[in-house]
Amino acid sequence: MNYQHILESIYDEIRPFEKEGKQADYIPALAKVNPDQFGICLTTIGGTSYKLGSAETRFSIQSISKVFSLAYALGILGDDIWRRVGKEPSGTAFNSLVQLEFEHGIPRNPFINAGALVVADILLEHLDNPEDDYLRFVREISGNPTIDYNIEVATSERESGYLNAAIANLLKYHKNINGDIEKVLGFYFKMCSVEMTCCDLSHAFLAFANHRKPFSFSSVNLTASQVKRINAIMQTCGFYDEAGEFSFLVGLPGKSGVGGGISAICPLRYSVTVWSPRLNKKGNSIMGIKALELLTTKTKESIF
Amino acid sequence: MNYQHILESIYDEIRPFEKEGKQADYIPALAKVNPDQFGICLTTIGGTSYKLGSAETRFSIQSISKVFSLAYALGILGDDIWRRVGKEPSGTAFNSLVQLEFEHGIPRNPFINAGALVVADILLEHLDNPEDDYLRFVREISGNPTIDYNIEVATSERESGYLNAAIANLLKYHKNINGDIEKVLGFYFKMCSVEMTCCDLSHAFLAFANHRKPFSFSSVNLTASQVKRINAIMQTCGFYDEAGEFSFLVGLPGKSGVGGGISAICPLRYSVTVWSPRLNKKGNSIMGIKALELLTTKTKESIF
Amino acid sequence: MNYQHILESIYDEIRPFEKEGKQADYIPALAKVNPDQFGICLTTIGGTSYKLGSAETRFSIQSISKVFSLAYALGILGDDIWRRVGKEPSGTAFNSLVQLEFEHGIPRNPFINAGALVVADILLEHLDNPEDDYLRFVREISGNPTIDYNIEVATSERESGYLNAAIANLLKYHKNINGDIEKVLGFYFKMCSVEMTCCDLSHAFLAFANHRKPFSFSSVNLTASQVKRINAIMQTCGFYDEAGEFSFLVGLPGKSGVGGGISAICPLRYSVTVWSPRLNKKGNSIMGIKALELLTTKTKESIF
Amino acid sequence: MNYQHILESIYDEIRPFEKEGKQADYIPALAKVNPDQFGICLTTIGGTSYKLGSAETRFSIQSISKVFSLAYALGILGDDIWRRVGKEPSGTAFNSLVQLEFEHGIPRNPFINAGALVVADILLEHLDNPEDDYLRFVREISGNPTIDYNIEVATSERESGYLNAAIANLLKYHKNINGDIEKVLGFYFKMCSVEMTCCDLSHAFLAFANHRKPFSFSSVNLTASQVKRINAIMQTCGFYDEAGEFSFLVGLPGKSGVGGGISAICPLRYSVTVWSPRLNKKGNSIMGIKALELLTTKTKESIF
Repeated sequence: MNYQHILESIYDEIRPFEKEGKQADYIPALAKVNPDQFGICLTTIGGTSYKLGSAETRFSIQSISKVFSLAYALGILGDDIWRRVGKEPSGTAFNSLVQLEFEHGIPRNPFINAGALVVADILLEHLDNPEDDYLRFVREISGNPTIDYNIEVATSERESGYLNAAIANLLKYHKNINGDIEKVLGFYFKMCSVEMTCCDLSHAFLAFANHRKPFSFSSVNLTASQVKRINAIMQTCGFYDEAGEFSFLVGLPGKSGVGGGISAICPLRYSVTVWSPRLNKKGNSIMGIKALELLTTKTKESIF
Repeated sequence: MNYQHILESIYDEIRPFEKEGKQADYIPALAKVNPDQFGICLTTIGGTSYKLGSAETRFSIQSISKVFSLAYALGILGDDIWRRVGKEPSGTAFNSLVQLEFEHGIPRNPFINAGALVVADILLEHLDNPEDDYLRFVREISGNPTIDYNIEVATSERESGYLNAAIANLLKYHKNINGDIEKVLGFYFKMCSVEMTCCDLSHAFLAFANHRKPFSFSSVNLTASQVKRINAIMQTCGFYDEAGEFSFLVGLPGKSGVGGGISAICPLRYSVTVWSPRLNKKGNSIMGIKALELLTTKTKESIF
Repeated sequence: MNYQHILESIYDEIRPFEKEGKQADYIPALAKVNPDQFGICLTTIGGTSYKLGSAETRFSIQSISKVFSLAYALGILGDDIWRRVGKEPSGTAFNSLVQLEFEHGIPRNPFINAGALVVADILLEHLDNPEDDYLRFVREISGNPTIDYNIEVATSERESGYLNAAIANLLKYHKNINGDIEKVLGFYFKMCSVEMTCCDLSHAFLAFANHRKPFSFSSVNLTASQVKRINAIMQTCGFYDEAGEFSFLVGLPGKSGVGGGISAICPLRYSVTVWSPRLNKKGNSIMGIKALELLTTKTKESIF
Repeated sequence: MNYQHILESIYDEIRPFEKEGKQADYIPALAKVNPDQFGICLTTIGGTSYKLGSAETRFSIQSISKVFSLAYALGILGDDIWRRVGKEPSGTAFNSLVQLEFEHGIPRNPFINAGALVVADILLEHLDNPEDDYLRFVREISGNPTIDYNIEVATSERESGYLNAAIANLLKYHKNINGDIEKVLGFYFKMCSVEMTCCDLSHAFLAFANHRKPFSFSSVNLTASQVKRINAIMQTCGFYDEAGEFSFLVGLPGKSGVGGGISAICPLRYSVTVWSPRLNKKGNSIMGIKALELLTTKTKESIF
């Protein structure tokens, strides 16, 4: 498969859409990103990377971090994690308090904000130095020791994060947060603030694409079955209220972030990360989704 | 792969659960089925079938019919069908009127009852002899010309089907049913009443497992892309409010029915149907889910 | 108190609003009513009536009928009625199915459609000739033997009444309708179709205004306490999702209808009915609410 | 009317229920109150008080404070207050976040927690020394200069008040809280922590019972119309999700608190406060509601 050629033809096809949508602007650090950027990096299971555009530019990974934090917490707790968070699609906007109230504090899945806050609480409970430990894992899985938090982004999100604070308080009310609310929110926003490139993420997600190779890092070890189950959750819950649409159009497990990034995997074939800041109304990158749709169409490789 | 051996070892492992759960009993015809039955049939893409237990016993396919009706309607309308029904997981019980009211009459997906009623309305609008045409398609796709409706079941469901009648009226109120409500309900229940064996269904679902072969029947033709998209919807929406759990445990697109059947596919490898009437609280066959979970574990073949 | 003078000064003050709002037009019979009409009739506890405008013109009483049907059913069942219908304000639009689903088929109160359908079912269960008996009661309480159903309106509502049919089916599903759904809907719409004048209604509501006089009619007898309790429900639930606003502005128990009528009472003082077809967004008569607000302001007579 | 005799006969009738229900115990200060207390104080519009039982024992007024804070804020803002809070019954539990989310941060009424938090925010915005000013008003309206906050109760509620913190954050997210969340919560809980006796509250509510006398205090002045409108809101929204039931059983505007107190008024006749810590499932005092029901039955004085 000539992936480089495919990436180029994809880019030609999606350029007409490069001014559609608007980047996230609820915090200054995201608002000031140049929205007219596009990057993609595909890494095959053999380890070869193909890239195009701003594939080496760092961006705020935001909710893509939820995959790493879930992997870490699953490694610690194993199946006990499912006592505190579900694995069903939410069927509503990603930040809905309604469902949380009806379901008495058990978030529907670890990829909505409520679920990720519970996961953050779990990591805080079990790690000696949560911020250092988490960063070490992300650096190791992506093979890039220079990856770091963006403190400005984390602080800025924390200061305006009233909705997440509402969710955290509701979780605490339902006794599904054990730690201090401020610490959980602080850690959650820090994890979201990590900055990575398409190539960093593509490298990191390769660990999820190849369940035949041990998922083994200094502090996080998962079985093949656990890796596949994270993929299953990415498939049904990875795109806020657009998981069905993404599954339908693209047919790959993946996770998007409000910074404009999308990481996805084609099991036993490749991992891919695309980035472009302009979002659709559901909060997913417009060019990103189009690029991935074309990728599975042109390669005829999807999970279905 | 020695599938026959695998089926046998699965059966040994799940026998301890054979008395768990209770069959559907809201209509007499379902209540009188012997609940202590189990059958499974796996058909490889090459056409070989492996079976075990009551694989040749007919049962009420119920909601599995929603896959056939969606395929038929998609063949007729193409992407226009998505104007009338969504493709997102529902996130609530399969029969919820709540979401329908909030979303002004557009069902979340074609596999909840509301969505299947809209699909039934579409078929009634476009087919000359809907009941005959539909039956012909099901017979053809399963290769069994003796398959038929069970009129007693259909009548009985219609008579007690107040919740579905409420949904149909709500859809009509929101102008998402064009035909006569009674006719739509009647046709919907007839499609659910079809009786098939595990082997019939396994044969039928092979058409969804192999998108490299044309999906071409006398009245229904789908592109490879359309077939894959039906699979994507089975993956995210095929198991009522347990789609995430099934995706997590089994990792295959599929569809369950309240009669105790589950049909699933492993793309480009096989289709499989399992049947056992005892259901869990979410309405899915207990032994059926366990059998499929073991199948993907033992074969190491899943989509992830 | 010079009520006639007060009515005239009210009319002067509200004339600037006479073109605001739009009449109900979901059925032809309501759409063709001349919207530029206004009538009011106030009847004191002593029996004197004061009227102005189209006070002798018949209009469709619609939901005002829910007061009569509740009185009838309460006379039959006594407090047992509260096993099948609540007495709390609904807090949502009058036709919401959501709350009904969450509360398993027990409508919040007898003045939302769901509650009135349950009341209709109760009357059908207990009356020999429901339609005749109900009409006899309405004629007797209003002192006008010529009052009648409008068959055209009833039929027309039934034919387009998909939302009410959805509600009735949902109630039946939850076993809170015992009779045949079609009969319940037919009787419900007939009761709504009754046509009365402001003076008819004013006379009829006098029976609720004076709990010191026996509420005693050929087939319906209520205690003083029961009369007061119907007033309490009118106070908290009589105006769809605007009960609080009406209580706040007007301060009298009352009941509105989509035909543009509002009947209200000032206990131990008077009953009053106002009619004007143009409605606000919540479905209540614009001039009607303004007139009643001015009435309690000018007379300084409210319940608070 | 021999009120003293009536109070005594009421007490005889309700004694059989004196062990029913359970006091609030979510904070230690409420849990340690002796639950077996009952007090009642009725003050006529002429100024005579009748009392029985622990009518001079101080208790935590909790949500009864919402009437005072509403009066204060209404005096400051006039009708502009209704831009930030509604006046409709909530139709759900008093602490529901659901409705708040659907209605984009505008609480249904000032007597649910969300509404009272907005009122607290208004007071913080407009008063120089909110805590002093508020306390001065409560002391003045009740004629008791020794009334005070209970700091232990306020602190204890603040520390465990995750649900209210969730609500406050959600209000802030919807831009319906202008001040600092911690300050709003702190002030809100302080207002709830005020301790008063039945006689204090009875005296204070007399100002709402008599709209013919100016509602005029050093810092709060309301028109007769504003007083009546506060009564209207007490009528439709004063008892959490039991407003309809209370209106039905008792027929008086009032407000309950989780400390076991209920204050109510019979306009132009009397105000009454009853206190008994044991609550029903909706959070209202069991003996309190029974006592008031008997009071309106025995006096034949209700607003209906």
